Amino acid sequence: MSRPRIDASHDPALRSWVEEAQGDAQFPIQNLPYGIFSPPGEPARAGVAIGERILDLRAAAAAGLLPQDAAPALRGDSLNALFALEPAVRAALRLSLSRLLSDEAGAPALRPGLHRAEACALHLPMRIGDYTDFYTGIHHAENVGRLFRPDRPLLANYKHLPIGYHGRASSVRASGEPVRRPHGQWLAVDAAAPQFGPSRRLDYELELGVWIGRGNRLGEPVPLAEAHAHIAGLCLLNDWSARDLQSWEYQPLGPFLGKSFLTTVSPWVVSAEALAPFAIAAPARPAGDPALLPYLDDPGDRALGGYAIELQVALRTARMRRDGARAQTLARTAASRMYWTVAQMIAHHTSNGCNLQPGDLLGSGTVSGPGEDECGSLLERSRGGLQPLRLDNGESRSFLEDGDELCLTATAQAPGWVSIGFGECRGLVVEAHDLA
Amino acid sequence: MSRPRIDASHDPALRSWVEEAQGDAQFPIQNLPYGIFSPPGEPARAGVAIGERILDLRAAAAAGLLPQDAAPALRGDSLNALFALEPAVRAALRLSLSRLLSDEAGAPALRPGLHRAEACALHLPMRIGDYTDFYTGIHHAENVGRLFRPDRPLLANYKHLPIGYHGRASSVRASGEPVRRPHGQWLAVDAAAPQFGPSRRLDYELELGVWIGRGNRLGEPVPLAEAHAHIAGLCLLNDWSARDLQSWEYQPLGPFLGKSFLTTVSPWVVSAEALAPFAIAAPARPAGDPALLPYLDDPGDRALGGYAIELQVALRTARMRRDGARAQTLARTAASRMYWTVAQMIAHHTSNGCNLQPGDLLGSGTVSGPGEDECGSLLERSRGGLQPLRLDNGESRSFLEDGDELCLTATAQAPGWVSIGFGECRGLVVEAHDLA
Repeated sequence: MSRPRIDASHDPALRSWVEEAQGDAQFPIQNLPYGIFSPPGEPARAGVAIGERILDLRAAAAAGLLPQDAAPALRGDSLNALFALEPAVRAALRLSLSRLLSDEAGAPALRPGLHRAEACALHLPMRIGDYTDFYTGIHHAENVGRLFRPDRPLLANYKHLPIGYHGRASSVRASGEPVRRPHGQWLAVDAAAPQFGPSRRLDYELELGVWIGRGNRLGEPVPLAEAHAHIAGLCLLNDWSARDLQSWEYQPLGPFLGKSFLTTVSPWVVSAEALAPFAIAAPARPAGDPALLPYLDDPGDRALGGYAIELQVALRTARMRRDGARAQTLARTAASRMYWTVAQMIAHHTSNGCNLQPGDLLGSGTVSGPGEDECGSLLERSRGGLQPLRLDNGESRSFLEDGDELCLTATAQAPGWVSIGFGECRGLVVEAHDLA
Repeated sequence: MSRPRIDASHDPALRSWVEEAQGDAQFPIQNLPYGIFSPPGEPARAGVAIGERILDLRAAAAAGLLPQDAAPALRGDSLNALFALEPAVRAALRLSLSRLLSDEAGAPALRPGLHRAEACALHLPMRIGDYTDFYTGIHHAENVGRLFRPDRPLLANYKHLPIGYHGRASSVRASGEPVRRPHGQWLAVDAAAPQFGPSRRLDYELELGVWIGRGNRLGEPVPLAEAHAHIAGLCLLNDWSARDLQSWEYQPLGPFLGKSFLTTVSPWVVSAEALAPFAIAAPARPAGDPALLPYLDDPGDRALGGYAIELQVALRTARMRRDGARAQTLARTAASRMYWTVAQMIAHHTSNGCNLQPGDLLGSGTVSGPGEDECGSLLERSRGGLQPLRLDNGESRSFLEDGDELCLTATAQAPGWVSIGFGECRGLVVEAHDLA
């Protein structure tokens, strides 16, 4: 098994000497997610989040505090080199950070490199080579498919392979990037010809992102049993979607401009090592589902194929901000709703010889549950715009309006272990540019 | 107009002092395509093709022979920086090369940097950020659409926007890369469940590739009238396709593993400057076709929207090689068969704010003509495999077999100007890996 093991860094009794790293913090010492950040007025560098602080990894490595074989990978302004390291080196780096941040003796040497997170800028953690978006959220596929094919929501291939498509890498941005409403072409109901203008059906998609660590060579598939060794870690991903553009353009070659104006990710990479205690059985395939082809089936992995991660999405409208009201949670769902595991996504993606590279990004596809409060997109929640969602303050939404701010969050939790958070994946919708 | 102008470098009377750069050469002095090459045993660097030789641009720049403002962009092992230069700098570099390679006085200084092309290795010319494949070959779209929808081959959106999809950048390779037959999942006719194994319907697609030079910022569309300023140049592109994988996987999100095992490009970038004399009127939209939306319409550009480029594809089977027989031309077609121009592709791609970056690659989609000898893929020529193509030596092909070598070539030609070639885009099909 290539999955990282539980080690001393996961000990629930561990405490950090760093202030505010306890309690229900997103980033307790059991998490230690990696990211790229800039202290005020300084250039970008690698860091690790601990409580409300960020530890400068470049400085710590330069001071000789971290394992020598990891240090060269901590010098750049992306995490690609770090996550291309051998699993053993990554595990040793994590253990070293865990000790330094829990042992008071480490404090004097580390304190100069500790920055207040709220004062720092967070950036994309990786230089992304390719971005692939999957479609593993079976309830999403059913909810959306039902809008178009009430009698046959899932297509025949869905339960045989993890459907996916190539996405646009250049427009992936870190949390906080404004969501400029895109222009595009769409066909109004009953119209004879399409029109061009700002999208009227702007939507979000709640997804889990997967950062690829080590790659594979062109022509050499990654077997399912080795897939976990290629996972750097996870993040949150909002696959912003212009439904009107999408429905007009997507036949026969798939989504294009309805997606490529922006994709937002949470900036912290919650590492595969950190997630070790949250491995759970892959969801059982419902009775009657087709048998898996051997390259997608590994009884050994099936026992630990999923992640115990709760996901949620919250909306704060312009009026809520004006009224000083808190954001309203629109949906809660879980990674266990994915029909295909991350390992299956990787094995399938490379099964034709396609090469993954360090820094590649995979999206899970929208993760929805069966209930109305588990919809990972407004398209599902409003039934294609026909049943607007009534908000607690009396507003309603079929799709997103300018001034709406979305925030995705997630927590990995399992009995007996300290829960770890993903940070935020946030985006504020701003009005379309005036192109006239 | 942002299109490069015809200047002294296009003078049909120009001759180079370099041997074998005359006559029907692919690379006369009027061409000067850029590429990345390695002399025997040496690292990769930028070069320009002249006849049967390659001039080392890094050496020429280091010797102070080239314009100073272009020199820093000639030091790396990709052309991204070169093509991100301002159009005026690129034009000056070309004029400088044209003078140095035509004036005998330049010979003594340049000769040490001239390499025999056949001894050098050619590489991908750009570090590719994103690769997008369009579908502008209307005869291809009709031929393929007819296989699935005899009564309605073109979908309703086809004539309103240039259909495209995101492709896989990591598996784009330069000419000569072996084409390893991919494994994948497909559904046999009348089968109840799919199987997994080597593709049985491996195909080629004859395309024109477009290299992006200068990019645009996220959120800032490129207007049609400025689109030409973003074109670095053109190449040939073979979008190898596993039709059995593709037809099983592509609904609802488009092509994925049926394409991502390999895409081959010709290694020379025939620059936008070199193509200036070959600008032709965009094909007239047939009577009855819908009006263009304003963002895709520019009467000024329509007069010069296309390229006078002839394309051809040749097949040499293992038996032909054994018999010492030459390759057989399978199809000849022309870039004028594209329903959408390159400028329209760029304007549409960025119309939602999507950012292009230097080194991005666009494919035209398969360029076919209406005739049987103008098919850019075997899928069309064999009518979905039902009517195998009979080769001159008695062999037949529905799809590609192991040992088949495909070679795409192209020539830009126009009355009164010296024709320029694109070099080769070549690939030999090799048997699938044994994954057992």
